[in-house]
Amino acid sequence: MNAAPRQTLAPLSPLFYERLVRDALAEDFGIGGDLTSQATIPAETRAQADLVAREAGIIAGGEIARAVFSMLDPGAHYDLAVIDGETVQAGTRLASVACDARALLGAERTALNLVSHLSGIATATARFVAAVGDRPCRVTETRKTLPGLRALQKYAVRAGGGSNHRFRLDDAILIKDNHVALAGGIAPALAAARRAAGHLVPIEIEVDSLAQLDEVLATADTPDCVLLDNFSLDAVREAVARTRGRGITIEVSGGVTLEIVSALAAAGVDVISVGSLTHSVRALDIGLDVGKPQVRS
Amino acid sequence: MNAAPRQTLAPLSPLFYERLVRDALAEDFGIGGDLTSQATIPAETRAQADLVAREAGIIAGGEIARAVFSMLDPGAHYDLAVIDGETVQAGTRLASVACDARALLGAERTALNLVSHLSGIATATARFVAAVGDRPCRVTETRKTLPGLRALQKYAVRAGGGSNHRFRLDDAILIKDNHVALAGGIAPALAAARRAAGHLVPIEIEVDSLAQLDEVLATADTPDCVLLDNFSLDAVREAVARTRGRGITIEVSGGVTLEIVSALAAAGVDVISVGSLTHSVRALDIGLDVGKPQVRS
Amino acid sequence: MNAAPRQTLAPLSPLFYERLVRDALAEDFGIGGDLTSQATIPAETRAQADLVAREAGIIAGGEIARAVFSMLDPGAHYDLAVIDGETVQAGTRLASVACDARALLGAERTALNLVSHLSGIATATARFVAAVGDRPCRVTETRKTLPGLRALQKYAVRAGGGSNHRFRLDDAILIKDNHVALAGGIAPALAAARRAAGHLVPIEIEVDSLAQLDEVLATADTPDCVLLDNFSLDAVREAVARTRGRGITIEVSGGVTLEIVSALAAAGVDVISVGSLTHSVRALDIGLDVGKPQVRS
Amino acid sequence: MNAAPRQTLAPLSPLFYERLVRDALAEDFGIGGDLTSQATIPAETRAQADLVAREAGIIAGGEIARAVFSMLDPGAHYDLAVIDGETVQAGTRLASVACDARALLGAERTALNLVSHLSGIATATARFVAAVGDRPCRVTETRKTLPGLRALQKYAVRAGGGSNHRFRLDDAILIKDNHVALAGGIAPALAAARRAAGHLVPIEIEVDSLAQLDEVLATADTPDCVLLDNFSLDAVREAVARTRGRGITIEVSGGVTLEIVSALAAAGVDVISVGSLTHSVRALDIGLDVGKPQVRS
Amino acid sequence: MNAAPRQTLAPLSPLFYERLVRDALAEDFGIGGDLTSQATIPAETRAQADLVAREAGIIAGGEIARAVFSMLDPGAHYDLAVIDGETVQAGTRLASVACDARALLGAERTALNLVSHLSGIATATARFVAAVGDRPCRVTETRKTLPGLRALQKYAVRAGGGSNHRFRLDDAILIKDNHVALAGGIAPALAAARRAAGHLVPIEIEVDSLAQLDEVLATADTPDCVLLDNFSLDAVREAVARTRGRGITIEVSGGVTLEIVSALAAAGVDVISVGSLTHSVRALDIGLDVGKPQVRS
Amino acid sequence: MNAAPRQTLAPLSPLFYERLVRDALAEDFGIGGDLTSQATIPAETRAQADLVAREAGIIAGGEIARAVFSMLDPGAHYDLAVIDGETVQAGTRLASVACDARALLGAERTALNLVSHLSGIATATARFVAAVGDRPCRVTETRKTLPGLRALQKYAVRAGGGSNHRFRLDDAILIKDNHVALAGGIAPALAAARRAAGHLVPIEIEVDSLAQLDEVLATADTPDCVLLDNFSLDAVREAVARTRGRGITIEVSGGVTLEIVSALAAAGVDVISVGSLTHSVRALDIGLDVGKPQVRS
Repeated sequence: MNAAPRQTLAPLSPLFYERLVRDALAEDFGIGGDLTSQATIPAETRAQADLVAREAGIIAGGEIARAVFSMLDPGAHYDLAVIDGETVQAGTRLASVACDARALLGAERTALNLVSHLSGIATATARFVAAVGDRPCRVTETRKTLPGLRALQKYAVRAGGGSNHRFRLDDAILIKDNHVALAGGIAPALAAARRAAGHLVPIEIEVDSLAQLDEVLATADTPDCVLLDNFSLDAVREAVARTRGRGITIEVSGGVTLEIVSALAAAGVDVISVGSLTHSVRALDIGLDVGKPQVRS
Repeated sequence: MNAAPRQTLAPLSPLFYERLVRDALAEDFGIGGDLTSQATIPAETRAQADLVAREAGIIAGGEIARAVFSMLDPGAHYDLAVIDGETVQAGTRLASVACDARALLGAERTALNLVSHLSGIATATARFVAAVGDRPCRVTETRKTLPGLRALQKYAVRAGGGSNHRFRLDDAILIKDNHVALAGGIAPALAAARRAAGHLVPIEIEVDSLAQLDEVLATADTPDCVLLDNFSLDAVREAVARTRGRGITIEVSGGVTLEIVSALAAAGVDVISVGSLTHSVRALDIGLDVGKPQVRS
Repeated sequence: MNAAPRQTLAPLSPLFYERLVRDALAEDFGIGGDLTSQATIPAETRAQADLVAREAGIIAGGEIARAVFSMLDPGAHYDLAVIDGETVQAGTRLASVACDARALLGAERTALNLVSHLSGIATATARFVAAVGDRPCRVTETRKTLPGLRALQKYAVRAGGGSNHRFRLDDAILIKDNHVALAGGIAPALAAARRAAGHLVPIEIEVDSLAQLDEVLATADTPDCVLLDNFSLDAVREAVARTRGRGITIEVSGGVTLEIVSALAAAGVDVISVGSLTHSVRALDIGLDVGKPQVRS
Repeated sequence: MNAAPRQTLAPLSPLFYERLVRDALAEDFGIGGDLTSQATIPAETRAQADLVAREAGIIAGGEIARAVFSMLDPGAHYDLAVIDGETVQAGTRLASVACDARALLGAERTALNLVSHLSGIATATARFVAAVGDRPCRVTETRKTLPGLRALQKYAVRAGGGSNHRFRLDDAILIKDNHVALAGGIAPALAAARRAAGHLVPIEIEVDSLAQLDEVLATADTPDCVLLDNFSLDAVREAVARTRGRGITIEVSGGVTLEIVSALAAAGVDVISVGSLTHSVRALDIGLDVGKPQVRS
Repeated sequence: MNAAPRQTLAPLSPLFYERLVRDALAEDFGIGGDLTSQATIPAETRAQADLVAREAGIIAGGEIARAVFSMLDPGAHYDLAVIDGETVQAGTRLASVACDARALLGAERTALNLVSHLSGIATATARFVAAVGDRPCRVTETRKTLPGLRALQKYAVRAGGGSNHRFRLDDAILIKDNHVALAGGIAPALAAARRAAGHLVPIEIEVDSLAQLDEVLATADTPDCVLLDNFSLDAVREAVARTRGRGITIEVSGGVTLEIVSALAAAGVDVISVGSLTHSVRALDIGLDVGKPQVRS
Repeated sequence: MNAAPRQTLAPLSPLFYERLVRDALAEDFGIGGDLTSQATIPAETRAQADLVAREAGIIAGGEIARAVFSMLDPGAHYDLAVIDGETVQAGTRLASVACDARALLGAERTALNLVSHLSGIATATARFVAAVGDRPCRVTETRKTLPGLRALQKYAVRAGGGSNHRFRLDDAILIKDNHVALAGGIAPALAAARRAAGHLVPIEIEVDSLAQLDEVLATADTPDCVLLDNFSLDAVREAVARTRGRGITIEVSGGVTLEIVSALAAAGVDVISVGSLTHSVRALDIGLDVGKPQVRS
């Protein structure tokens, strides 16, 4: 579980999560707020706590947790101990926060929900990236993301050492079986795409058989990328052989598991895309250990 | 996998998802929209498609998918074949939609992302509910939900036959270990909670040992509900024995797996809450099978 | 006019009012802003002013006023002299603010509108609370609040020493006459409610006669709370006698005036809910006394 | 209680309230929705109800209630019996609605909160307008409105036969005492205002004594309107005498009560502005009478 | 190109542009952010840059650019060298900014788009204002503004020495030909307007011939302002002569060019409104000169 | 002025403009709404009007105008006579609308502002496209768009026969001079970009001299596209010669005027990008001719 090019992970601008964090807190606070903390914690109490990993994994979202605590207590001190993309073990302290005690416990769940989810994505991605090893093959997510969370989920994939597939429907053309059917075939679909695409819009086409691949390779309007959908390993090898040297990126997708990743990379594909990275996330277990309280003197 | 009281599932008002659906489409369409469909599908083409389960499970979110297609084509015809909470097999048709072909393919991913996620939750919930069987014991989720999706995720738990835990921080008091520490003990915490709570705010307290439970039972301000956190099965049985007849609801939580659920229910607990139902969702595999296109004459 | 447990009033997080304050200022500034101050006050002038009560009452919203001035001048100095829930006399200084003079006069009305409204609610609430005296009886508002202002209005009730009724439709079940009619009677309504309610959702039922109360008390699914709607004082006394010892909270509502409150509390009811606290608010008269201006050197 | 020019009341575009209604419903429904109706009312039940005045008054907001019901049930039938601005008696039916029973009861409180508040404003306004009688004198509200509700509150004043004061800080210049102090006197303030004001921006100045009025009348830059603040009735008469024939509109404000209105109008003032119309609203008592339910066959 | 009363330009509150700036950055950053800067600029690099005019003109929006840079780097240092309304030459430095290098280049386009557009408006306005010279005649824009940008565009007109026409449909009555037609003539239209208008709502009427002007002047309800629409210069002179001394402001509009402005002002009109100031803006050429980078030690 | 591939213009989904239209109307209506129409037009009056071009050009935004009228009168009938991308002459009727008369005049300005602006963009674009003629060279806009309007402005470019440049900062890497400086040179910048770019993210680099171009062509990581910034025509020709056959798209930008476009296209460049298409828009003159009114019987 290691994510090679982590050193290049660019931090995420608060632009991408400030509104989401505010809305998440509002969703949890409702109209009356954190009744429990208001009732049981004396006013002006300060507290200190550590975010701690309860299992090994890759962390993503540490700075987002800072935003959660700061939104409830602008005077919160938050010290990040593990930067996004780093590997941690069970027991590793991720960050420490010192702030108003009611704010601390009121923010706890929202902060943990975000960091656990994103770290779960980074951890799963890193497993696929590790399986690829040193081969020049990228692991990417797909557009199977959760509503409102795409920017964060794609960031978590990068934190895990993965690369991003297209962000939306407008930054690349990806012709699937239904588009081919509605366009009247592979050649007309590719021709139409080339005619319509802006000069900075790449074109990818999905094929589900070697015969379809041959059809693609025979057109005048060859795509920038071809997606082998649900190919057997042998078929992938053959597809790579037929496509090699044509300047076309080769992506495989469809039920890719950790077991097969290494063989796929060895077969020479350029990109392996894995829907489960974002659609079936197992949260990383992260908790908050609260220290002894202090009452403000 | 069966969810008993499904017949009472109340449909979700569009109030809860219209804005989310609109924002999810906007997130996917960006500035240029669905370039692929615009390029490859002739204008005015209509298409028909079926939402089909690719694996067995419980469905949730069928009406939300209707909203997705209708937002791109107000004239879309959407016929629901399976109502939320019903069990389906691999191959079952969930719904059919007929609309503008570009709208169909542009909406496909957003619709599937939502229905797959919510059906994944309903399916996992139903497994726990089935394990409980006929015993008077509820299965609930926790507040470990994803930002912006809580109302939908909690609905999906209901679709799976589960019951909901508190919705937010303001509809019940739930005193956890950190509150106890900051309040100066169990008795002061419960007294403070009773004093502060409105007359319609129930009070629950988390205990992590039988000794703590005894402390709770000895207070004047007994809670409405007690949460046994990470108790062994034997300790659960003993806790139930000590609490029985006191008019206090008993909930267990903490690493609850499908294997242990039946024994917990048999031990006499009233509520089993399971964080993974919403924080570690495996999406149910659902696809869209597009039929032969028709060009409007 | 005294509100006993004011010392426990938890401050309101800015989460609950920042967006409202911003929108209120935008509503008042329109497109051209405060034309009068721009025209008549030299740039860079600073001013100092006091918020002063023009009549006796209970204050609520002092920190919200701070947010109003700070939003127009982030360098504003705002010193609160009276914390929410305190009693003031005509002439009492509530707070002082020093900031840019145009910001001061531009923010004045928005700040006063909010503090006057909330203090009006707190003051009215405190009158009812004082009438109850030392008896163990709570005064609450209802859901008769103004759109967008519920969190603030309910906070003001707490500032006046009151307690809150349910916050929304989802945090408690309150079965009214129409629900009974549609459910087919009191017993079926209570049974359905108990079946559907989550384990942290209390159940209350409204009755409008002693006969209906008897029906409620005879069911297997007794509610957590019963609401006596528009009962005469004698009927209230009789209802209390019949319900005593059943572990059921007793609430009265319907045309409750200050005159009757003391007798109701003496009759042994637990909760008195008063719609007019939020639906018919008399603003507390609060003004802004501006001091001599200073031009920045 | 009669509001003469009611026949000219222009209906309010849904632009002004659709978002507010949606947000008000969301505020009330939270995450779980109307638990009571979901639990006690069988699905597919339809119901019919009348909005009925419980006391005499002037109605405002009847169309807004339509929006509330329709948002929860797009198939709701809503028939308005009383148009905004009309006088009703206790018992008068204002409107009838037939829709899904859960939608009916879920929308009830939100609809009544809006109509009761706005009708309370219209009713109070109409009392002042009636006191003015046939004299050419307008009754207006002030900027003492509630955040987010200004457009609706000002509409309700019009429904009551009143006229609107300025809408915001940008549609008229109104020089108050603090502006005069900061500008260095009445003459410099008026000169600065005239220089800065656009050609469609009227100028009003507040005076608190006859001496100040004389100062105003002596300037070269006479205002379009003068506001007599807290003048005695005798002083008002004298002010009118001094100002007559100068083409300046005369407004009085400050603690205006119903008793004095007639005399003020008789004294010859053009406008009487009354802050309490919007800052201290007594809701008009309006209820919903639900008829016998029908289950869809 | 000189804008006389520029010294009185009141600064624009961030209330008017903070949300717009945030949304503009989000529009440009999408889901993945500034890929180029993330890829090519080492983390922690700081940079310094100057905003420089590439051509002569009048500046507007300098403080808005500050908000853009600060939103991406709260620690940005931004020093304004030219305040809004000042004249610059090609090569003049408008401001300097020092901040994180990725933030600098990520914010560049959004900042320049805003300042160039608003400075273009100020520059064009100043040309018209200069053509008017010392005559007591104002230059204003119209309601032909771009959606969401009206407050900023009208501010830019003020920065250029212009005055603002009405802000919206609710701050003045402006009766156009279609209103006259639908009202049944000029006299009924003016009478209806006078009856409906609040005491602070000025009334203007558009006429397209001297005959219509005579009709206006003959009514009892004379307007506050008359708009001569598409009059020849001779007709303007005659209209001024007929209207003089009636206390009515005279505005001309319709295809006003720089060439004719001086003659119109000399003819004695009070206001010249020019739609192209906001509907056909030529952006002022402004660039960002980035200095040598520094890596944080 | 002819835009060849207009037949392929895909219509814009209302997703892209519904919120913008609603906000634009709210910006214009303020709190009091269209005072003029309310005052002068009898209630229930219906009117009919034509949108008419006052000068020749290319139309864009016809369907958006429909949304404006429909938002004020859901029963509006709107018949489009000219579809987006078509050429019109002065006097051509673009559309007809029949609706409530107050809604018609209230919506007029907002509708015209949008259609005039977008049609202005389409018309200017079409002039450049016509100058290119039959050569395989695209005309595009840049990121110099107005905040909140990018999706619409880019659509208008397509309506004029143009093609779109990148939509945002996240759909292509475009390395400019400042990135090169901060990255330490052209080769390191290109290497870093290739390493960081996802497999569907194209890479473009800006060069300002033939020497820089040579440096680009000599790197191992050749870009997908090269941008010749402010090259003379001769230098463009030489650049094309040097780059030909390398599979690299050639774009020119910087002060491109209509006069030079034909020569640039003839020189063999693939893309000509023109900032003024969106940053300096001249609105197309479009008006609304209102027909005879009808009062509803």
